[in-house]
Amino acid sequence: MDIDFGNIKVVGFDADDTLWVNETYFREAEERFAELLEKFETKNKIDQELFKMEMKNLDTYGYGIKGFMLSMIESALELSNYTISQKTISSILTLGKEMIEKPVELLPGVKEVLSLLSNKYRLIVLTKGDLLDQERKLDKSGLSDYFHHVEVLSDKKESNYRNLLDHLEIQLNEFLMIGNSLKSDVLPIINMGAQAVHVPFHTTWAHEEATPEESVNKYLTLNELSEILKYLN
Amino acid sequence: MDIDFGNIKVVGFDADDTLWVNETYFREAEERFAELLEKFETKNKIDQELFKMEMKNLDTYGYGIKGFMLSMIESALELSNYTISQKTISSILTLGKEMIEKPVELLPGVKEVLSLLSNKYRLIVLTKGDLLDQERKLDKSGLSDYFHHVEVLSDKKESNYRNLLDHLEIQLNEFLMIGNSLKSDVLPIINMGAQAVHVPFHTTWAHEEATPEESVNKYLTLNELSEILKYLN
Repeated sequence: MDIDFGNIKVVGFDADDTLWVNETYFREAEERFAELLEKFETKNKIDQELFKMEMKNLDTYGYGIKGFMLSMIESALELSNYTISQKTISSILTLGKEMIEKPVELLPGVKEVLSLLSNKYRLIVLTKGDLLDQERKLDKSGLSDYFHHVEVLSDKKESNYRNLLDHLEIQLNEFLMIGNSLKSDVLPIINMGAQAVHVPFHTTWAHEEATPEESVNKYLTLNELSEILKYLN
Repeated sequence: MDIDFGNIKVVGFDADDTLWVNETYFREAEERFAELLEKFETKNKIDQELFKMEMKNLDTYGYGIKGFMLSMIESALELSNYTISQKTISSILTLGKEMIEKPVELLPGVKEVLSLLSNKYRLIVLTKGDLLDQERKLDKSGLSDYFHHVEVLSDKKESNYRNLLDHLEIQLNEFLMIGNSLKSDVLPIINMGAQAVHVPFHTTWAHEEATPEESVNKYLTLNELSEILKYLN
């Protein structure tokens, strides 16, 4: 593996499950959703059908909690064969609003890493999802001052990254991306010829799972974010 | 009125109801929503309650169709005292998805204005709402190539504009904003000391209505966008 961060001037951080906990809250919401529907189907079936509904609606709704709420409602209607009670639909709305209002829980070492790296590198946040949700989380996180720029992307494909790096006038060989998702944070970056570091989170949404294949030697994997300080200093 | 656009180098355009039709689709959706609930309440009452629900949820959901869909569902549950049928909730979901998938209908003169102005000015889009919705509309509009930059803001308050102009390194005296909403596109800009042009759309969402008071002499009002060519050329 050829890891040389000597040229790096700009470090991009994913936000959800890289800087703070996110996927855990979706898993908890899925648990509660399955409980609300337990008289209709098994937990397993409910999980599967909800995921299918999210994938069916992804092009229409995009990423984020509001789309998830709408998919939960549509899924509840179908799974119950349109017999779900009105109060249960109301409970799904409450469940979603609670997700939106959750406090932000930083992952271990995040503050120290950003504080140290911000002395030497330009740090940016590159996240996808709902604009308002992400701005709000950054605000609650207390991390805003470490970042030169925050970009919420509608998706994290190679073209989204290319447009953004062009716009911010960042050279590929000066850019390092750090994130928990191989599919969104690592593989598109490696394909572009920039560098990436993978810091897996214990929970990964099925949609974000990726098989690295031949890319496996092209990026660094860390157990936790603070290990990056051994490589960037 | 002191209108001098001699220093202007960058022209910002609002998108919804400035470049293309938007509010009309919300009004049509409200009509259909009221029809779905007609056995419970009068059209007038349904309109009022839906608007109240949108305002109650605005901090949580922000602007955009997904939040509107969730507010329609919550409003339908309350207005029907939790007796609304499951099929009607399904119809509300369909109604919202149809809004998201609507074609983009450009307003008169938009293409000509952008085409002419883009030879002399840096044009940018400054819109609020749902990131994915707005990107999709710009894409469908065929207008992307006229713009140097597109920014989707979570809100259009003075602070949002200030951050963006700083980030894009645009001087206040070089910036002109054009839009249909006094509250979002004109007043915050005038307050900052930049210039703004108001091009009213025939329909304005109640939330966007503003009373200009003493600001009325500080901006230009046009009947339609193409009149701007008399001032910028």
